[in-house]
Amino acid sequence: MNERLQSLLLSMKDQGWDHVLVTDPKHVYYLTGFASDPHERFLGLLLSSAKDPVLIVPALDANAAEAASTVKNIVTHQDTDNPYLLLKEQIQGTAGTLALEKDQLTVSRYEQLRQHVNADRIEDVGLALRDLRIRKSAEEVKIIKHAVRLVEDVLTQGLTRVKIGVSELELVAELEYLMKKLGADAPSFATMVLSGPNTALPHGVPGARRIEAGDLLMFDLGVYAGSYASDITRTFAVGDLKPEAVNIYETVLAANLAGIQAVKPGVTYGSIDQAARKVIDDAGYGDAFVHRLGHGLGMDVHEYPSVHGLNQDILQPGAVFTIEPGIYLQGVGGVRIEDDVIVTGDGVEVLTSFPKELTVIG
Amino acid sequence: MNERLQSLLLSMKDQGWDHVLVTDPKHVYYLTGFASDPHERFLGLLLSSAKDPVLIVPALDANAAEAASTVKNIVTHQDTDNPYLLLKEQIQGTAGTLALEKDQLTVSRYEQLRQHVNADRIEDVGLALRDLRIRKSAEEVKIIKHAVRLVEDVLTQGLTRVKIGVSELELVAELEYLMKKLGADAPSFATMVLSGPNTALPHGVPGARRIEAGDLLMFDLGVYAGSYASDITRTFAVGDLKPEAVNIYETVLAANLAGIQAVKPGVTYGSIDQAARKVIDDAGYGDAFVHRLGHGLGMDVHEYPSVHGLNQDILQPGAVFTIEPGIYLQGVGGVRIEDDVIVTGDGVEVLTSFPKELTVIG
Repeated sequence: MNERLQSLLLSMKDQGWDHVLVTDPKHVYYLTGFASDPHERFLGLLLSSAKDPVLIVPALDANAAEAASTVKNIVTHQDTDNPYLLLKEQIQGTAGTLALEKDQLTVSRYEQLRQHVNADRIEDVGLALRDLRIRKSAEEVKIIKHAVRLVEDVLTQGLTRVKIGVSELELVAELEYLMKKLGADAPSFATMVLSGPNTALPHGVPGARRIEAGDLLMFDLGVYAGSYASDITRTFAVGDLKPEAVNIYETVLAANLAGIQAVKPGVTYGSIDQAARKVIDDAGYGDAFVHRLGHGLGMDVHEYPSVHGLNQDILQPGAVFTIEPGIYLQGVGGVRIEDDVIVTGDGVEVLTSFPKELTVIG
Repeated sequence: MNERLQSLLLSMKDQGWDHVLVTDPKHVYYLTGFASDPHERFLGLLLSSAKDPVLIVPALDANAAEAASTVKNIVTHQDTDNPYLLLKEQIQGTAGTLALEKDQLTVSRYEQLRQHVNADRIEDVGLALRDLRIRKSAEEVKIIKHAVRLVEDVLTQGLTRVKIGVSELELVAELEYLMKKLGADAPSFATMVLSGPNTALPHGVPGARRIEAGDLLMFDLGVYAGSYASDITRTFAVGDLKPEAVNIYETVLAANLAGIQAVKPGVTYGSIDQAARKVIDDAGYGDAFVHRLGHGLGMDVHEYPSVHGLNQDILQPGAVFTIEPGIYLQGVGGVRIEDDVIVTGDGVEVLTSFPKELTVIG
């Protein structure tokens, strides 16, 4: 049994839960090593205080589950079976206190489950899973580093395609082509390339606009590789920039570095956001930094924690998140610089290594 | 107010529901024309027997909703508001019978809703929405035809990249690049290119295998464009095939044509599957056709109905679905030929037009 499953069994004991049912395929993978997409079929990992964990999988995934899962007690169901009856057999009698993934389970599925499974109390296992996921293992960090290397290679090769007259959407197509070609599973979100005035839109969508001399050019991209995500933003100069554009670039870079420098175990996420924001406030651009500093990164490209000024949660070693200050000014343009970082035993390691000094391309 | 919303209000009356809450962003778009991705924020369309529909949207989407929505009564909430309190205010008093999207709403959200909204009975609006969606409007058909044209152009251009030695994954990357370049929003599912022995795996995943002379080469791909999906499969010969590979190709093609010919209003989905399956059974390959004949196609690439032998539902004009028989033989290879069709007033229109006779490429 792996460490994560043992930790969850310990929380289960602490909470006084008799059973936990994990139904998010991502969490089944996280706890057993078995990755699958069951579509509309039932997939569940049942933990019980009184017996060994049981993995319930569609019959057509039986071989794959046996090969990959560290939970070796596997029960299969055919499409003509009722998986909730199987669950009932495994629980035997009342479930006592049953913790479910309330953020993942639909009302339909919950009703089917309750038709067959008696329980005295229903609890939510979501927080316990979130607390597990925030502490990345050495193995997870290795996979994230690989996803970061891949996206940095994509960006490096993609930049060679930048020239005056190429459109934002053409660059998006090139970058996503390179992702596939270099071995990524998928983009971790819709790849963003914005140019010129479009960079001033913090939620801009790439379009047909063609790159011109004097543009700021912003790339925000990431990949999934081995079930983990990377996420990076860099902004470049296409030829000479206006002095104010250079000024906001240097301000954002200083804020990015201040944010990174503030990362260490024991401080709050809020303090990281504030450290970066102060640099931008002091330069007089406070109103133009319209979003939080960053977000957690792992099996989801946006996951817990949210790095915003009011978050009083404490950084702990193994947490991976982004640092991505930005300034968006109508008439000048926008700059954002985003790195992925991990909290270490006594500070921070920056996972992204793509250069950050203002660079002219195209 | 659009026709779909009027139909849903009629079903609501028939069912005796006092309120309906639509929360799937796709269904909000379908009923109001307002497309959005609210992420974790609350989005809901509230229909009431006693008053006009109300659209509840995050404040940051207010302008977009006002511009796009045919429901003009729009209520917005800030991130610091509780959207369920807004819902309560709109309902005023008890909700009576409230129909929800039980397949979409999570247990967490349902619990938050029930903390604030009283109701005597909770029903499921899912079937009513499904029945609406199955009948595609002229406007929807136009968009689907555009998505079909796009994917056929992608396949045409993609085929020029096929040559001995190119890998399955390289062809996938080329095809997805062409999708973007030709203007598709996204692939409608993971693009599939399988070659040689891999074609015999009905759920094969593209890999590093390189195309060889004598291969069967199977492409299964689709795009989303304008919120609707297309989906097509064609299988080609790379040089000369074994006689049995030619034989299964001709059998699958005959089954595809028999399936299409069976399509008309008033017959069952089961009978369509059986018409195609009979051709394959009669040729002695019944055991090698291991999946249903097809699936509905629309805002989702797999939606209601399922075209399988036991489906006793009746075809009605406006239904769009795939016809995709296949034969998968270890040692020989696999062939699948998939078209998208629509049920017309008296028969069928085939939306895909890519040639189907056995073609040698590479």
